[in-house]
Amino acid sequence: MKKPEEFKRERNYLNELVLKYSNLNTKRFYNLDNSVYKEGAIPVKYKELMGLVGSMVLRCDECIMYHLMRCFEENVNDDEVIEAMNISLIIGGSIVIPHHRKAVEFWENLKKEL
Amino acid sequence: MKKPEEFKRERNYLNELVLKYSNLNTKRFYNLDNSVYKEGAIPVKYKELMGLVGSMVLRCDECIMYHLMRCFEENVNDDEVIEAMNISLIIGGSIVIPHHRKAVEFWENLKKEL
Amino acid sequence: MKKPEEFKRERNYLNELVLKYSNLNTKRFYNLDNSVYKEGAIPVKYKELMGLVGSMVLRCDECIMYHLMRCFEENVNDDEVIEAMNISLIIGGSIVIPHHRKAVEFWENLKKEL
Amino acid sequence: MKKPEEFKRERNYLNELVLKYSNLNTKRFYNLDNSVYKEGAIPVKYKELMGLVGSMVLRCDECIMYHLMRCFEENVNDDEVIEAMNISLIIGGSIVIPHHRKAVEFWENLKKEL
Amino acid sequence: MKKPEEFKRERNYLNELVLKYSNLNTKRFYNLDNSVYKEGAIPVKYKELMGLVGSMVLRCDECIMYHLMRCFEENVNDDEVIEAMNISLIIGGSIVIPHHRKAVEFWENLKKEL
Amino acid sequence: MKKPEEFKRERNYLNELVLKYSNLNTKRFYNLDNSVYKEGAIPVKYKELMGLVGSMVLRCDECIMYHLMRCFEENVNDDEVIEAMNISLIIGGSIVIPHHRKAVEFWENLKKEL
Repeated sequence: MKKPEEFKRERNYLNELVLKYSNLNTKRFYNLDNSVYKEGAIPVKYKELMGLVGSMVLRCDECIMYHLMRCFEENVNDDEVIEAMNISLIIGGSIVIPHHRKAVEFWENLKKEL
Repeated sequence: MKKPEEFKRERNYLNELVLKYSNLNTKRFYNLDNSVYKEGAIPVKYKELMGLVGSMVLRCDECIMYHLMRCFEENVNDDEVIEAMNISLIIGGSIVIPHHRKAVEFWENLKKEL
Repeated sequence: MKKPEEFKRERNYLNELVLKYSNLNTKRFYNLDNSVYKEGAIPVKYKELMGLVGSMVLRCDECIMYHLMRCFEENVNDDEVIEAMNISLIIGGSIVIPHHRKAVEFWENLKKEL
Repeated sequence: MKKPEEFKRERNYLNELVLKYSNLNTKRFYNLDNSVYKEGAIPVKYKELMGLVGSMVLRCDECIMYHLMRCFEENVNDDEVIEAMNISLIIGGSIVIPHHRKAVEFWENLKKEL
Repeated sequence: MKKPEEFKRERNYLNELVLKYSNLNTKRFYNLDNSVYKEGAIPVKYKELMGLVGSMVLRCDECIMYHLMRCFEENVNDDEVIEAMNISLIIGGSIVIPHHRKAVEFWENLKKEL
Repeated sequence: MKKPEEFKRERNYLNELVLKYSNLNTKRFYNLDNSVYKEGAIPVKYKELMGLVGSMVLRCDECIMYHLMRCFEENVNDDEVIEAMNISLIIGGSIVIPHHRKAVEFWENLKKEL
């Protein structure tokens, strides 16, 4: 898995490029993808953990890294991450394992970079 | 979507039949599927909402019904359900819409049965 | 597969219910799902065929019925439907076959209802 | 899950309809889907069990019914079915459970029909 | 994402190796995968855009690169690519975003290499 | 695809890290993932081929590498691998092709390392 800093840099670079090949609908979709995680009836922290579960069961490494980064910013602790990952493993099965391994490495790196 | 009572009855009936065609590993898997949603660092209510998101993005109607039923038992309110469903719609895309429609109907029925 | 009239009736009924359990983000998502199929650089007819392929490879029966209905309204002919379905079968594999069978039945019914 | 006889009848009926909306590529795909399960370096029985695992992890009920029917014809026994289903549950996760429940019911019905 | 030239080189190298581990059924499948995109009732250009949508919603980077390369050869323009990508984003959801970002970069590189 | 030795080294390293972020449920899941492939009514060799099919249709490169490695240890021969891969290609469709190409390369490397 990429290092957190590398992940953020690449993500920003590609987001710039996406803008060049976007129309109004593309922008609306990207905006909506931000809006649904905003504070509401469900606290941000749990929304990010939901985003993590959704990303793990669908096996999307970049999405996992993004939501782990956000979980870290929202002060999610190790036990909460482990429990959310266990739910993801059970729902999604052993094909989630390779993503789980890399997710754990990314989480470790987030803590080291601090 | 099935009515909640019908869903529970069918689920119980089939779980009996599963027992007949199970060995130790089958039972371990079914047990583990219960354990990960137990109270822990993350409150049960949010674990069930995570289960709902995982089920919606993977488009599993039976799983959606189960977690909605559990959310209802844990006193999740309409706004929380709506926000969790929005996260699921955005993560999983428009192919989630048919499951979203039926999920909303099941949630409505859960409240009516009360 | 449902008959086309039944499909439309149920879809309308459930869309009403969805409104009751929607917030702004839900509505934005449903609207965006309409916008991307509007006439543009790609003609509507081919956008609907793209929607059909996307729905078939992801094995979403309701989505397949919707796009077949729209293809029919846009005067897509049998040969075009067959070719789009072949692309879907090859991309998605034999797990698409059960959806293919039902899709063909729905297409036949769309023509009969005329 | 449908009863075995009903499953076979419907499948045959729809296969007829598919022929009406097929071109050469459609037929080639359906034929190839038969060829890969023929006796070879791997015995037919194990190929059908592989087809069962592939169908379960991809959660395709019709495909599961078809391969269970073929497994039954190839004299696969209960223990073999249980072990193949366990592999499928672990690989695919708890979202396979609803399909597992129905698969077990279909297997039971195959034995009853005898 | 790989550079277009690197992508083609690697793809050709691996296709050679696949031949070594192929039997008649393998070859038939690979051939069929070519046949369905040939000119027919639907023009090649739109078939490639359908292939792009199918590849994006199923999140297959190599398939996306291949169909973007073919779209480029068929003179698909930026606006058409953007609209096809929007359909893919909406159908497949935010888990398509990381593939979308890389797809946009590959498209940019295809134009630069010219 | 990684070389077999590199794959094993990385896998072991990450498994160590996973232990650090595991609770009892995590360990149970990983253990269960081993248990289902043990000798039983179905011989180990065919269980590994089933694991290969499940991994290919779900397009999990790491899982494919693992089961190919295990198949190699169980003396599965080229013809058996080819037939299992054909079943996977047909079930999962052309989106499996990029994984198929890399799987073939990994298999070749397993034989070379000997």
